[in-house]
Amino acid sequence: MKPFFNSILFLFLLSAPLCAQIDRVEPPYWWADMETSEVQILFYGENIAAYEVSTEAEVLITGITKTENPNYLFVTIETEGLEAGTFQFDFSKKGKKAFTRPYELKMRETGSAQRQGFDSSDAMYLLMPDRFANGNPENDSVEGLTDTYNREASGGRHGGDLQGIVAHLDYLEDLGVTTIWSTPLLEDNDPGYSYHTYAQSDVYKIDPRYGTNADYRNLADQLHKREMKLVMDYVTNHWGAEHWMIKDLPTYDWINQFPGYAQSNYRMETQYDMHAAERDQHYCVEGWFVKTMPDLNQKNPLVLRYLIQNAIWWIEYANLDGFRVDTYSYNDKEGISKWTKAIMDEYPNFNIVGEVWLHDQAQIAYWQKDSKIGAIQNYNTHLPSVMDFTLHDGLTSMFSEGAGWDTGMMKAYNNFVNDFLYPDINNLLVFLENHDTGRFNEIYDQNLDNYKLGLALIATTRGIPQLYYGSEIGMRGDKGKGDGDIRRDFPGGWEGDAQNAFEAASRTEQQEAFFSFTKKLFNWRKTAKAVHQGTLTQFIPENDVYVYFRILGDEKIMVVLNNSTTDQSLDLTRFREVLPEASNGLEILSDRKIKLEETLEVSAKTPLIIQLN
Amino acid sequence: MKPFFNSILFLFLLSAPLCAQIDRVEPPYWWADMETSEVQILFYGENIAAYEVSTEAEVLITGITKTENPNYLFVTIETEGLEAGTFQFDFSKKGKKAFTRPYELKMRETGSAQRQGFDSSDAMYLLMPDRFANGNPENDSVEGLTDTYNREASGGRHGGDLQGIVAHLDYLEDLGVTTIWSTPLLEDNDPGYSYHTYAQSDVYKIDPRYGTNADYRNLADQLHKREMKLVMDYVTNHWGAEHWMIKDLPTYDWINQFPGYAQSNYRMETQYDMHAAERDQHYCVEGWFVKTMPDLNQKNPLVLRYLIQNAIWWIEYANLDGFRVDTYSYNDKEGISKWTKAIMDEYPNFNIVGEVWLHDQAQIAYWQKDSKIGAIQNYNTHLPSVMDFTLHDGLTSMFSEGAGWDTGMMKAYNNFVNDFLYPDINNLLVFLENHDTGRFNEIYDQNLDNYKLGLALIATTRGIPQLYYGSEIGMRGDKGKGDGDIRRDFPGGWEGDAQNAFEAASRTEQQEAFFSFTKKLFNWRKTAKAVHQGTLTQFIPENDVYVYFRILGDEKIMVVLNNSTTDQSLDLTRFREVLPEASNGLEILSDRKIKLEETLEVSAKTPLIIQLN
Repeated sequence: MKPFFNSILFLFLLSAPLCAQIDRVEPPYWWADMETSEVQILFYGENIAAYEVSTEAEVLITGITKTENPNYLFVTIETEGLEAGTFQFDFSKKGKKAFTRPYELKMRETGSAQRQGFDSSDAMYLLMPDRFANGNPENDSVEGLTDTYNREASGGRHGGDLQGIVAHLDYLEDLGVTTIWSTPLLEDNDPGYSYHTYAQSDVYKIDPRYGTNADYRNLADQLHKREMKLVMDYVTNHWGAEHWMIKDLPTYDWINQFPGYAQSNYRMETQYDMHAAERDQHYCVEGWFVKTMPDLNQKNPLVLRYLIQNAIWWIEYANLDGFRVDTYSYNDKEGISKWTKAIMDEYPNFNIVGEVWLHDQAQIAYWQKDSKIGAIQNYNTHLPSVMDFTLHDGLTSMFSEGAGWDTGMMKAYNNFVNDFLYPDINNLLVFLENHDTGRFNEIYDQNLDNYKLGLALIATTRGIPQLYYGSEIGMRGDKGKGDGDIRRDFPGGWEGDAQNAFEAASRTEQQEAFFSFTKKLFNWRKTAKAVHQGTLTQFIPENDVYVYFRILGDEKIMVVLNNSTTDQSLDLTRFREVLPEASNGLEILSDRKIKLEETLEVSAKTPLIIQLN
Repeated sequence: MKPFFNSILFLFLLSAPLCAQIDRVEPPYWWADMETSEVQILFYGENIAAYEVSTEAEVLITGITKTENPNYLFVTIETEGLEAGTFQFDFSKKGKKAFTRPYELKMRETGSAQRQGFDSSDAMYLLMPDRFANGNPENDSVEGLTDTYNREASGGRHGGDLQGIVAHLDYLEDLGVTTIWSTPLLEDNDPGYSYHTYAQSDVYKIDPRYGTNADYRNLADQLHKREMKLVMDYVTNHWGAEHWMIKDLPTYDWINQFPGYAQSNYRMETQYDMHAAERDQHYCVEGWFVKTMPDLNQKNPLVLRYLIQNAIWWIEYANLDGFRVDTYSYNDKEGISKWTKAIMDEYPNFNIVGEVWLHDQAQIAYWQKDSKIGAIQNYNTHLPSVMDFTLHDGLTSMFSEGAGWDTGMMKAYNNFVNDFLYPDINNLLVFLENHDTGRFNEIYDQNLDNYKLGLALIATTRGIPQLYYGSEIGMRGDKGKGDGDIRRDFPGGWEGDAQNAFEAASRTEQQEAFFSFTKKLFNWRKTAKAVHQGTLTQFIPENDVYVYFRILGDEKIMVVLNNSTTDQSLDLTRFREVLPEASNGLEILSDRKIKLEETLEVSAKTPLIIQLN
């Protein structure tokens, strides 16, 4: 494609009153060299559907869709063979040209399609931007957005933002995490609970209280400079009631509507239960999560296309390394599968982890790409990664309940016995907690020993470990007291905070003990290839001591988690199939050299991570 | 095959001293027209392996196997083309005929191969013969068998026997059960715990304290006359230490031997855990259940063949309708699959239910024939039926814990959501309890309402309901007090018992209430085809009321289990997808006609089973 305009003409057109009829164009621009070469552009403006639309000859319009709402026009163009540049859409009525609208096709960055998503070599840090650090107090409240700064309210906006995250990348890099998953940052104009930001009102725009789109892209750039990665929290299931399209629906069925308000029954099991009543299946997926979050209808091809393009737009625009998808299993099953496949087709090495909050491995495995469980019902999500919620279930009690037939370390062991159900065990997210659960350090009353055991487990078993912000300094938070309590501000993220836990000198002794352990473990993990990709061989826990090995080629790591309250002497002959006689090793948490002969001593409530020579 | 001997010669040979060298021949006879036409005959006698063996020309010996123990000789013959009759094996040494041994091939009964096993049209009654009824006090103790009558001891022999079962078939038929599963009856000469009878000492012989082989066959005959069925409890995993072959092992590896005694770790999960240490896998399956039960090595083809032929022998001999296989998942995986396939190949419509005592549907489903879960590891047991232990887990608490997100009737509902994991849901055994668990009426303190809810559930959901003897009169039994307590004598099974609960007139009011409910339900179930084979459609429980429908063609049954402690008024519009407006029905437990219009009233803690017109 030739560049159509010289820049003077272009600037003229942009400012020309001829555009006044169009309030929104989404995606605002696109890329010329995408794998999927068609793009569907939404034009929004009063009575826009009354116009005919055309382009220059080089640009082929392959489809024009009008809906029952005349303020929308969906125009699909073919980009194959086009070069980057700007062209114009001409709008006319009764053969008479009315106005034009320029549209830009950019060139993708080199290697964009082949970008490598987060994987098991990474350690993910989950943070809530409103509660992490307030880098720019100027944007705590923003005109036009209803919810304003109120740090006193546990459900209010506290002012954290993108600048606050960028300002603490040294801290995160030092900690040893390699990937940031931030809860959503797109505009959420919910009047009362917007800090949560899952009720979005404009999905092409970073919420101004967090910063700008450019700030978000800058965060990705800054991370990439450190060889770190950025994961966006994407919401396909619902938007906020304040979303501009919700307030002027393109079609009645853009969202799932019932006579009256219908809430989801939250019974995701209905999605694979062969006996499920249709009514229950329907209410699960099409019922709303809450009243303020209208439920999107991914069965509608316009909605689905919109969500696919929006997601791709953010990957290209901000150079993302992955998605975390909210409430993955509440979406229309076929719709979310198509959405996921479309993205993975465009970026075959990308990664997407879905929130599939279930309590049974077969049920979770159902949702992972190429699942044999899903295949029973001819279903394939194409979703590369799922969350190991059953391990999480076990982690909430295994360190304090004592050893029994199926308690204590047996809960860890028993979780992994079902790994054969998963198509890709290295692509499971493993975590002590997240922003929707009780905090680990609350459940275990800030017991450092239990934290060490838990963190050692998630850092050395298969999968991708995920840390929740603040746990590295022992932060507490009681889900029973409400979500605000598990999403407290990181101390030191705000000017004037009584303490700054981002800085070693300001940490309490206890905070420092949590921090230094975390830092040591995650920094070691960065290069521990056997932990990223190695086989796992596990031994039945005895006396609440869980022993497993990670092995990749010559690299062999022995992990010993003594969860019992007494020192233990392990008979090493039991492990001979993987542990050669008279081995030597380096215990990486204590930097001790260890001779592994007949027995191994391990203190009460202590993890050992032994890199064998 | 021509009859080789006239009967006078035959009798002469049988009694001739030439046979003295042979102490045992197993199987003692065989059938000429089996699908698998080879049979391997074991000859046991002092130094028998020193002899050459031959037969008349018509009988082809296809294999002779000697082992390290010269007292065993395994001779395989081909029966294809042979007619029923008796032929002789000639034993010679250095070319000189030493002695002969006749062997009989019988004709199978007509239809033997196509026999129909128990299925979802049946209701199974599990009893322990030692504890059910003592029909013949003469055989309470038997010379040569160590463990003698001691009714005072909870783990002692109480004298129940086959004659006792046969004497109460009227009672069982009246109750409405259609199939008897008796715990094992083969000779068990364990000195201290033989009533249990899983430590067998001769697997071709009914324990004389229970009766004779003929008595066992008679039980089957009497049942068949009533169109009832008999299921044998078969033990492939182990024999008793007193088994004659264990005392003179054919081969060192006939049983699994370790240096010293090695007990199973009972961690069946090791059998599919992709991370399992080999050592743990090995100890699970090859470790012994208890010291008195040497663990058979089904990897040894001689052992496997012996077990297959023994099982088939009993099916043919006693005209069995099914097996229940003890500790199914503790056997060598490949061995038990071959064993099961061999039997099902011989009897394609037979049924075998395996004890796979696990607490996760994917793990249980792994063991059912043609499992998609097993297929992940290229494993197929060929086992038609497994036990729904996860439902049992739920049943032990769902009726008393109250309603919650995953408690109360949700435990039933949640069990069935994973049914898609099973290849054949109609072939699942569903039960409130068995001889190894706490009794339902103990757990619920003989609460009749809970019994009604529980029994209605297992009698109307998919699968084959199994009742444990005595529960139909409210019997208690606390597993915590030991196995003896859950295996109490049925009152009235012994002459002189203070009460005879087999007879209506002698039952207490409470016993009669339990009995009459059970009788009504199971007798109705006999012809309720929609329950046997129909689809199941379940609705998410609300207010602890669980509603589901069984539908087969025009036959439609609505089941309502109100587990809440308050009366409930159900809005029937919720069920419109399966319940037509203004339906009429007959509530089968109360014989009430019911109009199903806008609402349905259901009393607290009450099941309704409504046959719709």
